[in-house]
Amino acid sequence: MINIALDVMGGDNCPQCNLKGALEALKSDDEIILHLYGPEDIISSEIASWDKDVRSRVTVVNAQEVITTEESPAAAVRKKKNSSIVMGARAVREGRCDALVSAGSSGAVLAAGQLIVGRLPGVHRPPLASMIPTKKGFKLFLDLGANVDARPEWLVQFALMGKLYMQRVQNIPDPEIRLMNLGVEEEKGNALTKAANELLRARSDMNYAGYIETRDVIFGGADVIVADAFTGNAVLKTMESTVEFVLGILKEVLKSSLSTKLAALAIMGPLKNKMKEFSSAEQGGAMLLGLNGLVMKCHGNAEELDIKNAVLKSARFIREGTGDIIREAFAAENTVR
Amino acid sequence: MINIALDVMGGDNCPQCNLKGALEALKSDDEIILHLYGPEDIISSEIASWDKDVRSRVTVVNAQEVITTEESPAAAVRKKKNSSIVMGARAVREGRCDALVSAGSSGAVLAAGQLIVGRLPGVHRPPLASMIPTKKGFKLFLDLGANVDARPEWLVQFALMGKLYMQRVQNIPDPEIRLMNLGVEEEKGNALTKAANELLRARSDMNYAGYIETRDVIFGGADVIVADAFTGNAVLKTMESTVEFVLGILKEVLKSSLSTKLAALAIMGPLKNKMKEFSSAEQGGAMLLGLNGLVMKCHGNAEELDIKNAVLKSARFIREGTGDIIREAFAAENTVR
Repeated sequence: MINIALDVMGGDNCPQCNLKGALEALKSDDEIILHLYGPEDIISSEIASWDKDVRSRVTVVNAQEVITTEESPAAAVRKKKNSSIVMGARAVREGRCDALVSAGSSGAVLAAGQLIVGRLPGVHRPPLASMIPTKKGFKLFLDLGANVDARPEWLVQFALMGKLYMQRVQNIPDPEIRLMNLGVEEEKGNALTKAANELLRARSDMNYAGYIETRDVIFGGADVIVADAFTGNAVLKTMESTVEFVLGILKEVLKSSLSTKLAALAIMGPLKNKMKEFSSAEQGGAMLLGLNGLVMKCHGNAEELDIKNAVLKSARFIREGTGDIIREAFAAENTVR
Repeated sequence: MINIALDVMGGDNCPQCNLKGALEALKSDDEIILHLYGPEDIISSEIASWDKDVRSRVTVVNAQEVITTEESPAAAVRKKKNSSIVMGARAVREGRCDALVSAGSSGAVLAAGQLIVGRLPGVHRPPLASMIPTKKGFKLFLDLGANVDARPEWLVQFALMGKLYMQRVQNIPDPEIRLMNLGVEEEKGNALTKAANELLRARSDMNYAGYIETRDVIFGGADVIVADAFTGNAVLKTMESTVEFVLGILKEVLKSSLSTKLAALAIMGPLKNKMKEFSSAEQGGAMLLGLNGLVMKCHGNAEELDIKNAVLKSARFIREGTGDIIREAFAAENTVR
């Protein structure tokens, strides 16, 4: 059985969406045991109507405190020992759970991952990784915001973790890895990308194909795209806001006259369907890799489907033994170097 | 009169588009004298049909060499002394021209700016700056790719140059300046943004309003947005490719059935008109600021309108004395510090 801690009080739509997503995940995968962290009274009354069969795979863990997005993450994680995030992270650390899923404060989830769940031996830093929608399907993009001021050797480790993830969870035998850069020419780049590129070129255990230009990320130019957290985050946020911006312009145009309003009737359905292919809800949340257990962070505005898929993706990650594979790889890494 | 050097052989559409753009600029602004750098025989035959009046404001300077995008920029700039880029840059350096406009190799244009035109006294590095389309109109975004591995004090200088540009050329008396960052909270950021933020906060001569989140750049969250070249370039390229990506999806949807094809007839015209508001052609090219003269780099795929506007914008920059204002500000900067 797979034990997953769910932060019931995380995100804008808690607790209802989180609990609905939990229920759907439990129904879809009967190997999942969910540990629901939050105020016991609220959770118990909400899940009272669930089927007995499903409820037999649920425990409620009373976590009275909530870390808000306004608090300083590291301080809050240290202080609020009875918060759902901290208690869930402790359960992962102590092996009672295999993964923590939360749509709560990003900073607090990252801090709890690093400070409480803790890094695997040999791992410099845990990258935040996510499957992002591209023209060629979903690709793994990391680090999306966990470790600013990265060092070259961290990026090499991110590449290795990305490779193992794509092999185990996405069934891609030999994922192509690229490093995000200003251009693809070897002489281009900053000190970090140049040094990381050299280290990656020297590795024989990865299908490293060199640089990828930023503009090619959204066109799906590699299976694993490695960047430092500052740039990775900037690119991801820009993609999201530019999509919003262009769709906003389209909506204005569609509302501008009678003929465009009629046209809107014909295209909005197919367009929404098409955009669903690029919805990240299917992919669950973003993952902190390289820890003593999986930490999955969902969007703050996560809905039922996001939570459901985050739980299912976490279960798949665990079932495939991805964490163990990463642990072994870094134990070996340690011995060799 | 304003003397502008135009690289006739730069870009994918040279020499025709460059010369057509040149002609249009000459017609629109009779204070412009254009110095056309490229193979004399080709240029002379192309401009033979131009009006006498216009031709009286044109000189042709024979530049037989061309620097290609495949060449290593700095090496090519050092070696190809008879290339249009190098000869044009030398004319600016020596005061024979006030500005160089080129759609040629980006690397070579940047290198020629730094190595030949040269920095103004007191300027650490010349940023590449461009007016980018946002929801709230065009805003100045810099550094877009000139100086990787930036130092905090460089970013402060970029902010000051941005302020002076917006005041002189865009007539914004007190432009709001923001530093691009992972988040707006003071504790967020990498070592570079944190240090630059502190330096900027200490300045009383700029309307510095703190951080701007990457996602808010395209929504026009400030008049001047300052970033290091690596991240600035990544964000700009991501905006461009994401727009292309979303419009590509829309086109697929519009082609998907008879009813969407009919809808396309109604919306493509208004949509194209709307998108023109966001066309960067109106803004000319990207500018290297802080040099002994202006260097303007147009897109490699620049068309007639881009070249025309790049020349007109350069003329405006010079007419407003923007370069002199920057020169004076940095001379004062030097004396004070």
